[in-house]
Amino acid sequence: MAAVERRLEIRAGSHAYPAVVGSNVLEQAGAELARAGLRGRVRVVADELAWRCHGARLLEGLQVAGYAVAFTFIPSGETAKNLATLSEVYDWLLKVGVERGDCVLAFGGGVCGDLAGFAAATILRGVPLVQVPTTLLAQVDASIGGKTGIDHPRGKNLIGAFHQPRLVLADVGALATLPRRELAAGWAEVVKMAMILDAALFAELEAQPAALLDMEPALTARAIARSIELKGQVVAEDEREAERRMVLNYGHTIGHAIEAVTGYDVFLHGEAVAIGMVGASLLAERMGLLSPADRARQDALIAALGLPCSCPGLRPEALWMPMLQDKKARSHRLTWVLAPGPGQVALRRDVPTSLVDAVLHYLTTSTESPPVPV
Amino acid sequence: MAAVERRLEIRAGSHAYPAVVGSNVLEQAGAELARAGLRGRVRVVADELAWRCHGARLLEGLQVAGYAVAFTFIPSGETAKNLATLSEVYDWLLKVGVERGDCVLAFGGGVCGDLAGFAAATILRGVPLVQVPTTLLAQVDASIGGKTGIDHPRGKNLIGAFHQPRLVLADVGALATLPRRELAAGWAEVVKMAMILDAALFAELEAQPAALLDMEPALTARAIARSIELKGQVVAEDEREAERRMVLNYGHTIGHAIEAVTGYDVFLHGEAVAIGMVGASLLAERMGLLSPADRARQDALIAALGLPCSCPGLRPEALWMPMLQDKKARSHRLTWVLAPGPGQVALRRDVPTSLVDAVLHYLTTSTESPPVPV
Repeated sequence: MAAVERRLEIRAGSHAYPAVVGSNVLEQAGAELARAGLRGRVRVVADELAWRCHGARLLEGLQVAGYAVAFTFIPSGETAKNLATLSEVYDWLLKVGVERGDCVLAFGGGVCGDLAGFAAATILRGVPLVQVPTTLLAQVDASIGGKTGIDHPRGKNLIGAFHQPRLVLADVGALATLPRRELAAGWAEVVKMAMILDAALFAELEAQPAALLDMEPALTARAIARSIELKGQVVAEDEREAERRMVLNYGHTIGHAIEAVTGYDVFLHGEAVAIGMVGASLLAERMGLLSPADRARQDALIAALGLPCSCPGLRPEALWMPMLQDKKARSHRLTWVLAPGPGQVALRRDVPTSLVDAVLHYLTTSTESPPVPV
Repeated sequence: MAAVERRLEIRAGSHAYPAVVGSNVLEQAGAELARAGLRGRVRVVADELAWRCHGARLLEGLQVAGYAVAFTFIPSGETAKNLATLSEVYDWLLKVGVERGDCVLAFGGGVCGDLAGFAAATILRGVPLVQVPTTLLAQVDASIGGKTGIDHPRGKNLIGAFHQPRLVLADVGALATLPRRELAAGWAEVVKMAMILDAALFAELEAQPAALLDMEPALTARAIARSIELKGQVVAEDEREAERRMVLNYGHTIGHAIEAVTGYDVFLHGEAVAIGMVGASLLAERMGLLSPADRARQDALIAALGLPCSCPGLRPEALWMPMLQDKKARSHRLTWVLAPGPGQVALRRDVPTSLVDAVLHYLTTSTESPPVPV
């Protein structure tokens, strides 16, 4: 396959950092680090599975450029994203030695990026961070924007810091080993970005959902790069999550609640967000913001990607508690992110409780998926 | 005693926060929080001893202004400044509930301020922090500048974050219960600020060291406020510790090493810094930067405050390792902070190793204190 490469400049406050999306980015890792001005040693914190599949390419890419590299593994899976694993990463970093000129390189999915990113944010009060996301979800979402952190028994991401990466390397080739279900869940976040921010991207996605699942290289790299670009723009306007950044929460209010009540082991994050977007579009339609036709378009794209559109069997009342405990809730009032149409977004704090109840009831009883377009 | 109050505005990047120094500041805590725009609930993380002595005054000051307050204790002493205590503080904050509009109030010495500050920096990726230092050292040093963190078995403050407080309340009355030795160690940091940044303050201190140890109210408040102001100015120029902030490390290169090799339980931090300043002044004199007369003035003030001027019995070679491991060391080259005279500072990376050896030898063999001025 032909080499594909797109370079983006992500702004974050007074700084900016490059994000490189392409098919042979791992092999160029060392050259990219040098280009980004990172001259110290590289401390790699890697997801164990990702390392087994793609670690050799990264290692070669770093060593060919003369970098001194040390690496450690963290277990794959969300359960590793806790204070105990973080403590082990601290111990390892201080054992192999780390100075402020060295960088921490996170190699893996969102869990690894969040945890290693938080370690980078806090070791010696902060060392440079390089994000090398190896899942679609992490490439389009977690690696951009500077959010790092770990989970707590009382909830996800309750402990963390904002720490912008110095460089993001998204190797599209690394996605080839992803299970199809995980790939679809990653595309859910891209659908989200398109739905709230970019009607043209939305049209491109809905024109060829099968090609997305088949990872057609040019389309894949283009969609990933555009999604990164969009997220970068939102984050640049609002590094520390005041109002603007909340738009990224589209589909997440209900999505997070679904994940919480199912113990995070029934739905993948992107699947829960897909159901949340179906819920949000129904809210938007009932609020008179979104036309039935546009709602159908969104839901059809979600279904065409093989993503779930409902969560039958859950109790609507159970979903309320985690929604109110969300760390973005202010004094128990929910802000809903709604999409009045592809590429449009609105924040609403006036959604009636009864309407939310009705939507939750629908999501938890419906077993029909929207029709898949032919 | 007459009420004394001084208000300062500390700049930190694009923000600024007030520091209030005075004799009845705890009683006004609620009014000051309101004035600083903090309207949420107050989560107090308190040093156990400080709370027993002065907690009632703080609690009254907050409750009279209508604040909802919850409090927890951490054990007194540096050994509590670790990941285990931090984990307990996280658990407590999430149990009593914390939202982004609530604040964490650190009530105690530097250990409490650093640990509670780090919890505030990282819970929900950051909530507002109020520093209420109750020791002299914390009032003039730790509470200003936004450094927060915890220790690791491999070294002090190796894990942490920059998180500027929204408000600092320094109640001079709280110092009345401090042991005289701890008071003297606190004044060591004030001597440091004067020596590198303010010749007039230095002259004021050396004119009446006994009044400092007797806590003469007007002098005490004036010296504390000036020291806070000076530190605030340095930090404002360099929030994230590049070159400028390094001046604050005067006396700390050797001081930290002395603390490290003695396991942090022989000298108080300020005492180790005092010895470090004696060492730094000797280096500066030998480098031809500092006149013998000015060196004698500094050392005489240190001695007059009852602070140690040497550390007989330690091995000079043992002091080297922690100096080179300091997180500010860059590729094993030491930057020395030297004072060419009261109110003057110079950063030097050209201090010969042999000269440092000679100074370490002097400090570890000398048992003479400089003469106390009559």
